[in-house]
Amino acid sequence: MMLSGKNLIAGESLDAAAGMFTARGALAQFEEASTAHVDRAVDAAVDAFDPYRRLPADVRASFLDRVAAEIEANDELIAVAHVETALPTARLAGERARTAGQFRMFAALVREGSWVDARIDLARPGRAPLPKPDIRRMLIPVGPVAVFGASNFPLAFSVAGGDTASALAAACPVVVKGHPAHPATSEVAARAIIAAAHATGIPPGVFSLLHSTRNDIARALVQHPEVKAVGFTGSLRAGRALFDAAAARPEPIPVYAEMGSVNPVFVLPGALVERAASLAEGLKDSVTLGVGQFCTNPGLTIGVGDARFDDFVQQLEALMRIAPPGTMLTPGICQSYEAGVRRLSGIEAVSATRSLATAGESEAVPSLFVTGATAFMRHRELSEEVFGPSTVMVRCGSRDELYEVARRLEGQLTATVHGTPDDLDEYAPLVSLLERKAGRVIVNGFPTGVEVCPSMQHGGPYPATTDSRSTSVGTAAIDRFARPVAYQNFPQSLLPVELQDGNPRRIWRLVEGTLTKED
Amino acid sequence: MMLSGKNLIAGESLDAAAGMFTARGALAQFEEASTAHVDRAVDAAVDAFDPYRRLPADVRASFLDRVAAEIEANDELIAVAHVETALPTARLAGERARTAGQFRMFAALVREGSWVDARIDLARPGRAPLPKPDIRRMLIPVGPVAVFGASNFPLAFSVAGGDTASALAAACPVVVKGHPAHPATSEVAARAIIAAAHATGIPPGVFSLLHSTRNDIARALVQHPEVKAVGFTGSLRAGRALFDAAAARPEPIPVYAEMGSVNPVFVLPGALVERAASLAEGLKDSVTLGVGQFCTNPGLTIGVGDARFDDFVQQLEALMRIAPPGTMLTPGICQSYEAGVRRLSGIEAVSATRSLATAGESEAVPSLFVTGATAFMRHRELSEEVFGPSTVMVRCGSRDELYEVARRLEGQLTATVHGTPDDLDEYAPLVSLLERKAGRVIVNGFPTGVEVCPSMQHGGPYPATTDSRSTSVGTAAIDRFARPVAYQNFPQSLLPVELQDGNPRRIWRLVEGTLTKED
Repeated sequence: MMLSGKNLIAGESLDAAAGMFTARGALAQFEEASTAHVDRAVDAAVDAFDPYRRLPADVRASFLDRVAAEIEANDELIAVAHVETALPTARLAGERARTAGQFRMFAALVREGSWVDARIDLARPGRAPLPKPDIRRMLIPVGPVAVFGASNFPLAFSVAGGDTASALAAACPVVVKGHPAHPATSEVAARAIIAAAHATGIPPGVFSLLHSTRNDIARALVQHPEVKAVGFTGSLRAGRALFDAAAARPEPIPVYAEMGSVNPVFVLPGALVERAASLAEGLKDSVTLGVGQFCTNPGLTIGVGDARFDDFVQQLEALMRIAPPGTMLTPGICQSYEAGVRRLSGIEAVSATRSLATAGESEAVPSLFVTGATAFMRHRELSEEVFGPSTVMVRCGSRDELYEVARRLEGQLTATVHGTPDDLDEYAPLVSLLERKAGRVIVNGFPTGVEVCPSMQHGGPYPATTDSRSTSVGTAAIDRFARPVAYQNFPQSLLPVELQDGNPRRIWRLVEGTLTKED
Repeated sequence: MMLSGKNLIAGESLDAAAGMFTARGALAQFEEASTAHVDRAVDAAVDAFDPYRRLPADVRASFLDRVAAEIEANDELIAVAHVETALPTARLAGERARTAGQFRMFAALVREGSWVDARIDLARPGRAPLPKPDIRRMLIPVGPVAVFGASNFPLAFSVAGGDTASALAAACPVVVKGHPAHPATSEVAARAIIAAAHATGIPPGVFSLLHSTRNDIARALVQHPEVKAVGFTGSLRAGRALFDAAAARPEPIPVYAEMGSVNPVFVLPGALVERAASLAEGLKDSVTLGVGQFCTNPGLTIGVGDARFDDFVQQLEALMRIAPPGTMLTPGICQSYEAGVRRLSGIEAVSATRSLATAGESEAVPSLFVTGATAFMRHRELSEEVFGPSTVMVRCGSRDELYEVARRLEGQLTATVHGTPDDLDEYAPLVSLLERKAGRVIVNGFPTGVEVCPSMQHGGPYPATTDSRSTSVGTAAIDRFARPVAYQNFPQSLLPVELQDGNPRRIWRLVEGTLTKED
């Protein structure tokens, strides 16, 4: 495919570039979007909204399935992403399958239809003192959604990622601001969505791609009066800036910013007796997986500092010394990682172990930091995310000190406990505590690897996300882009099909307080 | 009951008043809460949170049922509220029944248990390329909740109102800042909750009442780091201030502020042919009900200005001229109403009709304003809420102009259409448009009267509320105070009872994508 380098607005370009930029590999020159591009993209989304949401659910589902097919068949997507992100081809092939799978999952959800949470309470005209009206309620789409692509998953959390899939599934048009680190990948993914819309008769305004390296364009998109929700995956600083911009609007809108976390891993004494070597191996793998560029990378490992914990630390140090460096997503991310490593290394009472292998350009050197609970609690930086292949090990003096460390943690995407049944019994308050800190709690596993399924919760209290009520992975992600509407005393013909007496879609509905698929 | 006038923190008082104040009737002197009161109340809530959420659901349900019983039996509540709010005793008796009913409804919801939205995806250790872990997900309470009582429903939307009931149902402790217009009513309601907690063995820290007339105390409560969500009913200005304070926190939290709206009523031509007289009567009743002090008061009436519409206007004018004035909740609210009336009367191209009856002190005079669509669209004030017994009638020149007026409306709690089947057919785009503007759309009814049931949606796009995804009335209100947590690879004994294999609570769960009550 020839890359156009254009902003793609409802499938078309617009001569209004505010400059040009390139990314790794310089596959093309890309247009910087101007506010004219933002306005045109949102206008197209507004025009497409009503026609799109009025389409039968199975047409929308066919569109989503078609996006999946277009992506699944697209080898250029992997070739281009490999050049731009330095991620290995095999990993990108897996990510492509996940990306297509997400669209298929939402297609199935939309086709099944019960996600609209339909509720029906029938009229009781004879009720005293006042008659009861007929009221029916379901979820409807919120309107145009702005999506900000992430750098670390150039397919699954980017232009055709989970935010886009879930918003389109909810019947919201989407305007994506692609991540400037992989603009060619963004263009290829966008063309897949545009082709799918064309093939299935979906109004082209449901999808636009903007390229930009500029904060003011991001802000203009979030503050456009017709944008009704925002999905974002990225850094705390950028996510908070978008949240603040949205909260300052005359009409505030929800921002679903997933900003990562340090994903604490607690290793309890019994587990170390039972399997210190495999734990060290597993932790090293999880820390260095994908050059540590996962939101769920375990950046913090906590235990009670007995002799076995010291042995465990030594085993992990030995593994980290021989762990190979890896090329990061961008030179800037690598510089940030190295700056983070220097920051942590400079703290008194922190000992650092780094891989002894020689690093090439933009390659991150795996790093391990070890410190005590007192220093950890004194130095806030030790509990802040360093994006890359590193973890901070915290040696606690006692079980109570371990609880104190846990209590002081900020909100997390995940929290993990390794322990024997006896450990879990003895440390029961820890699990209860972590439940309040994290969106997902894991026992005897590792946080990397986020399953796409109805029960997944990929989110968590701030600063992991700006909205702990939501998930960006799994079927529940669709709820972010919908709001309930009640219909009172409506004639059947005017009701949405999901709320009509006959239940023509055979969905689950709460009728007079009872869940049923009947009429 | 002797009124103490104290801030009631976990059932006790604290000597730290920042002054005293009284309300209508001067039933007692009430302590102004200080920041020491705020801190102590939130500390008590934090301490109570874990013990409270760990109680079996049926204990929590018994507590809620007991609150209902305490309120239902309490005649002092009505006597005191009547003095403080000037609302008629019969209306307050109805509101008391509603208040008790809300607690009973949430007790039933908690006892039934399916509201936690349990989801289970089983492990598939043999899956290629990676094994699938066991993941289970459900809603858990967010933590301490701050509730701000409303002035216009001193029982149902105040200390023991829907926000408190739904937060306690979700297992969140509650700190209420009572409305300073009815502090004695607040104390009596608080004592009912405290007595119910005592009788059912609930930790007293789950509930505290603060009295305050001061914005800085409201802000201190919203910005307390341990407060995790806010419920509010009141004015746009106050609601937005709390929203802004919450968004500016280091850790932002959700604010569910219900700030009212003008609740447009569209009267279509056929309906006027069929039943102009009964429509005028019904609209007058809805506008003047409770001295117009409802969030769902119809402040805007819109039609196509033919001869029948003019007749309709005249009929309504005649009814408003003889409508009796009524005492408002506070002298300040009455002054605001009269200022609003003067503001609208002063706009060129607006004609005003007022009740000819003589008004007493703090009595509002029913008012009707008539204007054209052009003036309506030019003067923003005409679409802003004037809290009290008034409505603005807008005469449109054509159907398209009526659509244009509808398109320019801000977010609303409700929108209403009166029409014959033919009208509804001809004006089909209007309903579609109103669905995007309002939380509840009503056909051939009036917006006042908010049914408490699973299908109720009492909310709507900004500025009706700060969070259109939520409702403050009905069972779905509980969702505001909960967030999902996923449990990965948990042993059965460590899982919440709602997620255990055997489904001991026999709740609806989504198991492997299928809704079931089975194991």
